[in-house]
Amino acid sequence: MKKIAVFTSGGDSPGMNACIRAVVRAACHYNIEVVGIRRGYKGMINDDFVPMNAKSVSYILHKGGTILGSARSDEFRTAAGRKKAYTNLKKHGIEGIVAIGGDGTFTGAHVFMQEYPDIAIVGTPGTIDNDLFGTDFTIGYDTAINTAMEAIDKIKDTADSHDRLFFVEVMGRDVGFIATRAGIAAGAKAILIPESKTNIDELVNLLLDNAAKKKMSNIVVVAEGDDEGGAMDIAKKVKAKTNIFDIRVTILGHMQRGGSPSCMDRVLASRVGVAAVTALKEGKKGIMLGQTHRSISETPFEKAIKHNQKMSAELEVLAKILAY
Amino acid sequence: MKKIAVFTSGGDSPGMNACIRAVVRAACHYNIEVVGIRRGYKGMINDDFVPMNAKSVSYILHKGGTILGSARSDEFRTAAGRKKAYTNLKKHGIEGIVAIGGDGTFTGAHVFMQEYPDIAIVGTPGTIDNDLFGTDFTIGYDTAINTAMEAIDKIKDTADSHDRLFFVEVMGRDVGFIATRAGIAAGAKAILIPESKTNIDELVNLLLDNAAKKKMSNIVVVAEGDDEGGAMDIAKKVKAKTNIFDIRVTILGHMQRGGSPSCMDRVLASRVGVAAVTALKEGKKGIMLGQTHRSISETPFEKAIKHNQKMSAELEVLAKILAY
Amino acid sequence: MKKIAVFTSGGDSPGMNACIRAVVRAACHYNIEVVGIRRGYKGMINDDFVPMNAKSVSYILHKGGTILGSARSDEFRTAAGRKKAYTNLKKHGIEGIVAIGGDGTFTGAHVFMQEYPDIAIVGTPGTIDNDLFGTDFTIGYDTAINTAMEAIDKIKDTADSHDRLFFVEVMGRDVGFIATRAGIAAGAKAILIPESKTNIDELVNLLLDNAAKKKMSNIVVVAEGDDEGGAMDIAKKVKAKTNIFDIRVTILGHMQRGGSPSCMDRVLASRVGVAAVTALKEGKKGIMLGQTHRSISETPFEKAIKHNQKMSAELEVLAKILAY
Amino acid sequence: MKKIAVFTSGGDSPGMNACIRAVVRAACHYNIEVVGIRRGYKGMINDDFVPMNAKSVSYILHKGGTILGSARSDEFRTAAGRKKAYTNLKKHGIEGIVAIGGDGTFTGAHVFMQEYPDIAIVGTPGTIDNDLFGTDFTIGYDTAINTAMEAIDKIKDTADSHDRLFFVEVMGRDVGFIATRAGIAAGAKAILIPESKTNIDELVNLLLDNAAKKKMSNIVVVAEGDDEGGAMDIAKKVKAKTNIFDIRVTILGHMQRGGSPSCMDRVLASRVGVAAVTALKEGKKGIMLGQTHRSISETPFEKAIKHNQKMSAELEVLAKILAY
Repeated sequence: MKKIAVFTSGGDSPGMNACIRAVVRAACHYNIEVVGIRRGYKGMINDDFVPMNAKSVSYILHKGGTILGSARSDEFRTAAGRKKAYTNLKKHGIEGIVAIGGDGTFTGAHVFMQEYPDIAIVGTPGTIDNDLFGTDFTIGYDTAINTAMEAIDKIKDTADSHDRLFFVEVMGRDVGFIATRAGIAAGAKAILIPESKTNIDELVNLLLDNAAKKKMSNIVVVAEGDDEGGAMDIAKKVKAKTNIFDIRVTILGHMQRGGSPSCMDRVLASRVGVAAVTALKEGKKGIMLGQTHRSISETPFEKAIKHNQKMSAELEVLAKILAY
Repeated sequence: MKKIAVFTSGGDSPGMNACIRAVVRAACHYNIEVVGIRRGYKGMINDDFVPMNAKSVSYILHKGGTILGSARSDEFRTAAGRKKAYTNLKKHGIEGIVAIGGDGTFTGAHVFMQEYPDIAIVGTPGTIDNDLFGTDFTIGYDTAINTAMEAIDKIKDTADSHDRLFFVEVMGRDVGFIATRAGIAAGAKAILIPESKTNIDELVNLLLDNAAKKKMSNIVVVAEGDDEGGAMDIAKKVKAKTNIFDIRVTILGHMQRGGSPSCMDRVLASRVGVAAVTALKEGKKGIMLGQTHRSISETPFEKAIKHNQKMSAELEVLAKILAY
Repeated sequence: MKKIAVFTSGGDSPGMNACIRAVVRAACHYNIEVVGIRRGYKGMINDDFVPMNAKSVSYILHKGGTILGSARSDEFRTAAGRKKAYTNLKKHGIEGIVAIGGDGTFTGAHVFMQEYPDIAIVGTPGTIDNDLFGTDFTIGYDTAINTAMEAIDKIKDTADSHDRLFFVEVMGRDVGFIATRAGIAAGAKAILIPESKTNIDELVNLLLDNAAKKKMSNIVVVAEGDDEGGAMDIAKKVKAKTNIFDIRVTILGHMQRGGSPSCMDRVLASRVGVAAVTALKEGKKGIMLGQTHRSISETPFEKAIKHNQKMSAELEVLAKILAY
Repeated sequence: MKKIAVFTSGGDSPGMNACIRAVVRAACHYNIEVVGIRRGYKGMINDDFVPMNAKSVSYILHKGGTILGSARSDEFRTAAGRKKAYTNLKKHGIEGIVAIGGDGTFTGAHVFMQEYPDIAIVGTPGTIDNDLFGTDFTIGYDTAINTAMEAIDKIKDTADSHDRLFFVEVMGRDVGFIATRAGIAAGAKAILIPESKTNIDELVNLLLDNAAKKKMSNIVVVAEGDDEGGAMDIAKKVKAKTNIFDIRVTILGHMQRGGSPSCMDRVLASRVGVAAVTALKEGKKGIMLGQTHRSISETPFEKAIKHNQKMSAELEVLAKILAY
């Protein structure tokens, strides 16, 4: 392996820069040449390559977002697009690639490698959603749950001062990982996630029970992909059944994607970044490097993306015991 | 002055607790008895009074929200309601009151004092909106602009990574103080405030100019009270005129009201809290204690609430020079 | 199990309050009466017991420190002291205890249970040092490494601006867990920990290599228990060998113990707190409840405290690859 | 004015980058060419100049430290050194300079302008110490007091948990501005500053009074320039007089210089940065641009540096009333 490339793709997540840095520094360590591809598959097709060295990643470890950018690429979904990408990679002499991203990123890599097996691609899990199989946590998840929790802590100040009921919507696409941990950590009264059927009547009863205990100030955390809709929808459904609460809704939105990565995210990103280069060097490909328990683990792309990551039932029970 | 009361009213703001603490500690310092009234004018009517001493405010200096609670009171708008309030105050032997709040709070106090001149009320400016005359800043404003700025900093990470245009709505009711400082501090491309007419065509031209310079990632900060509507409305209007931007909208919402107060807010709250008790002791009433330049200043309630607080024209020009 | 007690002991750590809350709420959930013991073993001896219920832990989830206090107790090291403690526990009808703490806490519990086997004690790992066996992480460790990292991030701003070499000392007693993760996450040039022999000459050569690359601004993270001494000692030893660096030393100190707990710490504290009560209810005793990989695990006290927790060799190598 | 330079000098402070950005953007706005001088007067002598434009300051608004670096220059204290500097400035065609710094920076500028009056220098107040006359606050002060306060908040968690007495030393050179506001905001029991004579006996009596009230947990904030010495010295002196306290000392150190600037610091830095360029354009020189009350003010260098900035007596009294 003489020359490799690194890119970020899909929704950005805090720690992607720490991972880029680790990939570049590991390449330097192994005397492998390294280039960055700007804006993911789009840049691969548009020949948007930048040479990188140990120094070019000097002040990015703590930065949110991704210095390489990210973008959608419909063209990469076509055979013609992928051919252009391949031509560019060969022109630059790229033998291996580290793809930092999630579901869509690895699906693209998987298809590409079946057509062009002489380019070795490995991946690292870069998404705040934590929805990949083969790693305990994804890069950015820890930061995102802290960001969400801190925002809910602030909302709780005003909820308590005014005896209000807040519905707070957090990100997570079709999974409830952000909602579950941020909700438990912020002391939410209820946490509504796609993994378990939401029952509006049950929720209303829970809130009325609380009201009977003179506790009118409550936080309900709603995962954006919940089966009963977003926070706005659920607030409306609750309002239709009882009018005793002073309800407010907050949709935390894109601030959950940004911010300086947490310590755990920077360490995770650094570990899998170095491991990815090591794997390429050892001739591996088609795998995502993750962290399982305390060790680096390898998971084939097609397995990583199939939503096999399960929510712990214990956490759901926990949330109920702690709510008062 | 042998016994005073303190309450918070209106929207809560970070630093209200620091102010309650200062009022209570100053009362103790002067050997004046002090009680807290829970939930503002509502608690005054419902006889919801709690005795306080130096120790009861021991761990609240850094806490967001207000330990005394806040609530609307339609009943206080009626003569009958105010009479109940007066009866309760007399029953408890209250001679003076410190009212921590904003516009509505001081309006209520002003009316009450005209009917019952034997109760001396003074106020301190507790609102994140900074819309009171007679003080350079209101308690909570500094924290709120930091909270808004930090959220926009995070949004900027993802805006830059994806070359997106974000419309971010901040609080401020019918004034643009939060929008202006948070916008300048976060490097917003444009800041839309109620104080100056928003021109959608001009905004679109500015954004297209930027696009011509290959800068697609931009933040536009929108004050909730802008004359062209909230962030959602303005995003729609921009979209109707050009389709080249990848637009997202975030409404920061109630998290701007919460959080641990900044150093400046805690110091301001402490200063005016102590000054309020000193003023009562000296026989003053009907005034808001504020901070003007470096000194404590006194402003009659009726003048404090008349929206005489002006936005600095220099700040508006500044925002334009800095935007690139 | 009809009545249990909970206490915190040893150095305080962020998340202890979240754990107290979980213990109390779980007890309520199971209809078990619960009391708090103030100041650990000292309070047990001095009969400093406070009744607790679901409401008494309502606003503590996000608070650093411990509402129950902590203290050393030399008296508990004596048989006479432990007898007093036992008498008090029996007087209050305590059948089970949840001890939140570390090494010393569990050693005390182990001794006590051999003398008084009718009191069932279980523990949860509350220490920022992460030095317990039987749990992947201890309560407070995640917050402490974020606090340390954020402080080093700030120091790096000024180091870079002035081309200075900083030695930053972090906590961790005789282990290097805080130093290792905070150091990797903050981009330290070198990380000196007790687990591996520190070689001053090697360190000086590394720094001179960097100087040769025109990089004079560097951070060296020193674990307080390093074999070559604290940051101050090591700075002196480096200075004795070369005088080309503009050296500064910072000892982060006790701020690393405080602060609002991170999301992961609150969730961990909540999980093991509930698990501890469940264990008592099931008749278990003499064990620490930890989290190993994704599940709750049980480890006998005598095994938990024997420093079997190992530093990952991979992390040490990682730090070297990433340093530039 | 066709071409200007900007540099930072002295101890770095958060917001210096925001000020550099404002200077550069304002220059662009006025069509004035602008260069940065690296490492202050040292770079002026060593011809370390970098061309700058609107884009080169694109991502620095939120960054701590200074991208232009800072350094001491003994050579600039000599006539020969200043001559080299002048020669370089003329070579580059520099007509005006914005100097961002404090005391030493303006002293240097003042001397230089008397020798070379054809170079117009204006300054902006960049120091965390707040020790300049002619501006209400200096750039970086607001961030530094928030950093110090947040650290003390964390220390308070552990002080309260263990009933300990902490002496916390903060920066500020020979003035007590950081100590005073951070101390009031963090609820310090006592604040020791150079501006008022420290009396160890009085301090001990105050602490013993508190102990009599069963309050053993206390924070004493010590300004580094206090007349009785630093926190370590004062702790020793207290210990020599009474042994009942469990004492700890923390020296916050250089982290107070770093970190992302607060909203107020970014706005202040932006305002005076633009004002500095405007002043040069209008032919002004030899002045520091500050902010006095709500307006931009101009103060001759020789007046700005003479420590005329006074501590408010009211704040000192306040601290005593609030301490309990």
